[in-house]
Amino acid sequence: MGKEISQAVIRRMPRYYRYLGDLLDEGVERVSSNELSEKMKVTASQIRQDLNNFGGFGQQGYGYNVQYLYDEIGKILGLEKQHNIIVIGAGNLGQALANYSKFRKLGFMIIGLFDVNPALTGTIQGGIPIMMLDELEDFAASHQVDIAAFTMPKHSADSIANRLIKLGIRAIWNFAHVDLDLMDQNVVVENVHLSDSLMQLSYNMRCKNEK
Amino acid sequence: MGKEISQAVIRRMPRYYRYLGDLLDEGVERVSSNELSEKMKVTASQIRQDLNNFGGFGQQGYGYNVQYLYDEIGKILGLEKQHNIIVIGAGNLGQALANYSKFRKLGFMIIGLFDVNPALTGTIQGGIPIMMLDELEDFAASHQVDIAAFTMPKHSADSIANRLIKLGIRAIWNFAHVDLDLMDQNVVVENVHLSDSLMQLSYNMRCKNEK
Repeated sequence: MGKEISQAVIRRMPRYYRYLGDLLDEGVERVSSNELSEKMKVTASQIRQDLNNFGGFGQQGYGYNVQYLYDEIGKILGLEKQHNIIVIGAGNLGQALANYSKFRKLGFMIIGLFDVNPALTGTIQGGIPIMMLDELEDFAASHQVDIAAFTMPKHSADSIANRLIKLGIRAIWNFAHVDLDLMDQNVVVENVHLSDSLMQLSYNMRCKNEK
Repeated sequence: MGKEISQAVIRRMPRYYRYLGDLLDEGVERVSSNELSEKMKVTASQIRQDLNNFGGFGQQGYGYNVQYLYDEIGKILGLEKQHNIIVIGAGNLGQALANYSKFRKLGFMIIGLFDVNPALTGTIQGGIPIMMLDELEDFAASHQVDIAAFTMPKHSADSIANRLIKLGIRAIWNFAHVDLDLMDQNVVVENVHLSDSLMQLSYNMRCKNEK
């Protein structure tokens, strides 16, 4: 299921999930694709099309049951299982990730925070003591690690990535300012290149000003 | 120029810029589209096509002059001018942005950091003293502010956005976990929804496992 679905559709699913979560928080039980369309500023037909990729979920004339749709999209996104994350690089960004409570609510648990700076050893961030990078192998042997978040400087990213792959870690959430060169193409990588996104913003500002 | 160019092409430009910057750091003066292709894992014809959107830059048989191409892409991305950024929300993520030196090298200068927590007043982050949000109007009156980065809780994002728009700020780099509802559609918004990107990673992990 879902294998032939385009990444453009997939990119919209977390957004649906977010809006449905907001509706749940507001106590809304049922929503039509028109209401959802107005709220999300996406056409109702786009919404129906997107959801039909996964088999629909709506009843003609009755709209969507918010809790049901929320749960189903959660399953599509793999959120019914907990994901354990380790963060490599306990600088400002790594610490920010460790302290971000929103991830926990989605089942993404940060269970380890690693750095190479001995001065940080044992410092607590988000309830987690910072460990040294040479403890990585021991930690991975005794904990289920699903995702590694990379917030270290880019020059060490490739070697650490390949070290993690040897430990069986198959997903990298990459904030390091580099495209990873991996020895195993089966590893899933999601890049968050903050500078790239700033440059895109800058481009769009320039175009807007020229109009 | 550039108005009809698709966002997909635009999304690749910061990546070209990044790779060309690395080549410059390595002292490389000239690069062929084939070499760039191998390095970036994009086809050479894709590279030529992308760059032709902006008029080319290469000489048949001679490849690209790295410095020239780097500078030209920088201009396309609007990087020849400095951008002043204020960060709203001086929590972990806001502090991480203020301390991230890479932005400065690209001409994105964080000149202000605002919060509502009085305990933070005057704390220095990335060389900038944290100010209180009620000082925003005074600050904007005496400084050129080009971009506001939103790292505050989502419930205050819309009202602060519209307050900034009244102050003439026309670009928002949005990390708040919400799609902004703006009174002025001419404002450029670039979203970095970290949870959405984690969910996308989770989806791709699930699909990989099912294969």
